[in-house]
Amino acid sequence: MSDYAFTLEMDVRDYECDIQGIVNNAVYQNYLEHARHEYLKQVGINFAELARNGINLVVVRAELDYKLPLMSGDRFIVGLTMQRESRIKFAFHQDIIRLTDDKIMVKGKIIGTALNPKGRPAIPAELDKLLS
Amino acid sequence: MSDYAFTLEMDVRDYECDIQGIVNNAVYQNYLEHARHEYLKQVGINFAELARNGINLVVVRAELDYKLPLMSGDRFIVGLTMQRESRIKFAFHQDIIRLTDDKIMVKGKIIGTALNPKGRPAIPAELDKLLS
Amino acid sequence: MSDYAFTLEMDVRDYECDIQGIVNNAVYQNYLEHARHEYLKQVGINFAELARNGINLVVVRAELDYKLPLMSGDRFIVGLTMQRESRIKFAFHQDIIRLTDDKIMVKGKIIGTALNPKGRPAIPAELDKLLS
Amino acid sequence: MSDYAFTLEMDVRDYECDIQGIVNNAVYQNYLEHARHEYLKQVGINFAELARNGINLVVVRAELDYKLPLMSGDRFIVGLTMQRESRIKFAFHQDIIRLTDDKIMVKGKIIGTALNPKGRPAIPAELDKLLS
Repeated sequence: MSDYAFTLEMDVRDYECDIQGIVNNAVYQNYLEHARHEYLKQVGINFAELARNGINLVVVRAELDYKLPLMSGDRFIVGLTMQRESRIKFAFHQDIIRLTDDKIMVKGKIIGTALNPKGRPAIPAELDKLLS
Repeated sequence: MSDYAFTLEMDVRDYECDIQGIVNNAVYQNYLEHARHEYLKQVGINFAELARNGINLVVVRAELDYKLPLMSGDRFIVGLTMQRESRIKFAFHQDIIRLTDDKIMVKGKIIGTALNPKGRPAIPAELDKLLS
Repeated sequence: MSDYAFTLEMDVRDYECDIQGIVNNAVYQNYLEHARHEYLKQVGINFAELARNGINLVVVRAELDYKLPLMSGDRFIVGLTMQRESRIKFAFHQDIIRLTDDKIMVKGKIIGTALNPKGRPAIPAELDKLLS
Repeated sequence: MSDYAFTLEMDVRDYECDIQGIVNNAVYQNYLEHARHEYLKQVGINFAELARNGINLVVVRAELDYKLPLMSGDRFIVGLTMQRESRIKFAFHQDIIRLTDDKIMVKGKIIGTALNPKGRPAIPAELDKLLS
């Protein structure tokens, strides 16, 4: 796990599971988002505060590989690394790993940008510093 | 719109919007899933019934391009086409289109398979027929 | 159904169902909220717009009687009436009714108020008019 | 906090907040449910396992008093006590308490029962023992 810039431990909640008894596809995006926001908060970037100031961090592309399903009772970590994708884009590489056997359940690449109050892409200074 | 095998009209619900006042990323996956299930139901394939019989349609990969955000009050359609991706995989190409201006908000490619009661990939006959 | 001030037709989406194969408890609150917001919009009161202007319609109490569970594929209506509960509170009486047999699935009484930008209860004029 | 039979510490996730920047009403029900299931699991009653065996723990009534809203970044505990409500019903008294100032944000009384595979109310032996 030492290769991630940040890891967050979480557990499956029963309401996140669907008819098939497994975590619903969309819920993994919630897990990934929560881990990204916690990571950003830890490095001093607050998603909610930025939003209140008219600066919106937004996802422009998500690629998700669903390898194995999480189930009720499972405990897992979300590991992530972040890197610059282009001048105005950054990418999170994120893995969801089941704790009982360290298996990767979901692999995600989430590409984002930041929009200023006028809706134009503009990476805020604190994020720019983080990426360089 | 004539190029889609199926379209479903929906509208944004306020609880689907987040702090930024726009539909949360994960919610689009809900929209896409609901449209896929409605399409399958229309062609005689019932996701919930299959699940009760131990046959699980599962997503193995999702690629989502977020182009513009839906907001409170927006009405939209989800258009989809389905095609075979490999012997045991199928792909849905899905667009979310805002009705006021026909702009594409999200483009998705969702690749799925079916797992039999033993958890092995096996396309059920009715789905196999649909794909050929 | 003629006794409701407003009705909204909706259908269960598979992702709203949980491990038990029935709609999860919390989801009914989403249904009820969506119906309230659609009703308010119809009478000229826009929840999202009010929020952007610092006026927040908030729920202060919810009473929900779960009589029968909705399941995948069910179509239903949410019927509602609204009345003044006190000088600064209003109440929605809401029923969720399955369309196949007109059975009441959930009965709700939702009491709300409005908070002005200072966070103090204050019913906006348009809502006040509606309640009198 | 010593009066609760069980407490669970959680934190608000940004995707749980809505247009108003506060946790959406329905989400509190998720928090309360998760705490109930964790409590039951701790005393040897597994909601998901029971469901797989055709025994469904269901909510028949919920009363929720929303006192103050949780916001992005808030950390809180859910405290609960459980008692028998009638021969076939049990009640959870649950508080959601913000950790920064120990203020009660939401108070809930959730009444439930258990349905056997035939759909009839029947409290399973392990739950019966817990309640007596």
